[in-house]
Amino acid sequence: MLGIIRVLTHKDQEFVDMHGKTITSIYHIPTISRCIPDQYQGVHDEATKAKAIPKIVALARELEQYGAKALLISCAADPGLAEARAAVKIPVLGAGTCVAAIAQSLGTHVGVLNLTGTTPPSLRKVLGDAFFKEIAPQGIENTTQLQTPEGKAAAIAALRELETCCDVVALACTGFNTMGLAKEMRPLLSIPIVDPIEASGAIAKQLFLGDDENACFEK
Amino acid sequence: MLGIIRVLTHKDQEFVDMHGKTITSIYHIPTISRCIPDQYQGVHDEATKAKAIPKIVALARELEQYGAKALLISCAADPGLAEARAAVKIPVLGAGTCVAAIAQSLGTHVGVLNLTGTTPPSLRKVLGDAFFKEIAPQGIENTTQLQTPEGKAAAIAALRELETCCDVVALACTGFNTMGLAKEMRPLLSIPIVDPIEASGAIAKQLFLGDDENACFEK
Repeated sequence: MLGIIRVLTHKDQEFVDMHGKTITSIYHIPTISRCIPDQYQGVHDEATKAKAIPKIVALARELEQYGAKALLISCAADPGLAEARAAVKIPVLGAGTCVAAIAQSLGTHVGVLNLTGTTPPSLRKVLGDAFFKEIAPQGIENTTQLQTPEGKAAAIAALRELETCCDVVALACTGFNTMGLAKEMRPLLSIPIVDPIEASGAIAKQLFLGDDENACFEK
Repeated sequence: MLGIIRVLTHKDQEFVDMHGKTITSIYHIPTISRCIPDQYQGVHDEATKAKAIPKIVALARELEQYGAKALLISCAADPGLAEARAAVKIPVLGAGTCVAAIAQSLGTHVGVLNLTGTTPPSLRKVLGDAFFKEIAPQGIENTTQLQTPEGKAAAIAALRELETCCDVVALACTGFNTMGLAKEMRPLLSIPIVDPIEASGAIAKQLFLGDDENACFEK
């Protein structure tokens, strides 16, 4: 079982489970998802990141206790990744590290679609000299705004701009998964799109190879 | 369809198809495999690498013409990766870049199990400061020797040494896949093992998401 730490607060467990369901449907890994308390706008700047870290560490410990075999911090800024790794004995993945790792394997000119501002440092570090261009959708301030028609139009426009100069796009916010951006745009774009949740699932899968692939469907 | 370039010569097509079959069985991606001519010992030093590169580029062009949607150079030294990317329009993956990308996402102290000598530069570059230790099985000079009882014992001994100090192991030769090392040792080792073929499949999968998952079983 992969424990998924959602780095925003949401009262609807169905919403909280969405990233886990994506991973289960593609990679047949059973997942359990929990969200941090009292951060309804998620992590979108240094202050909200600092506030989230102790909550992420607490959830990491809780999910390890619950029996998770590995953990995913489901946020492209990888908040609390080092802290969670220090706190638990199981492998901990960060969605930012994962999307960057896969994007730089697929091309040499990686375009990064951020939520706001510049590319998160952990993602940038993994991209190395494959990093080519960064952009954020116009008028977006936090992840919940991506789920509006205006947010979607702005994200697609930004993606089209990256398409003109890059050979692969990394989506640097897990909110792009929630809005289904890669799924919708993959058939329409001329270059590969790497989604942070799909990428994290691909990497987590390496830890579950050899396990009964259908175990998650039997519960 | 993923085109797989085997960087050694082998007359048995069933052997040539082995890496592709691993990828198809885990990720449901259809594959086609071809091997380079006149290199029965594969690539194991600078001279054999230089000799292989034009053959790899020729195969890349051939597989693109044949209709491959992406290519994998199935060798952890990533021979001809830049040259093949320059020669074709489809994405080209290198098994070395892929195994390194996934290993550095899973841990901070990556141990590299090489075939011989030191870690290939392309793999080392991706690992960055997550690179922690490198080792090669004693008495091994080329990939075919891995398929003997002595080769297997030497590979397992080297893996056990990495286990004592690292938090993840990257297998830096696709011959370790052929011998089934990760599959056999994963349940016995206390840290994750990343296999170059399984890792390459995980990354290639990002290019096939949205395609009919069962297409490869219908042919």
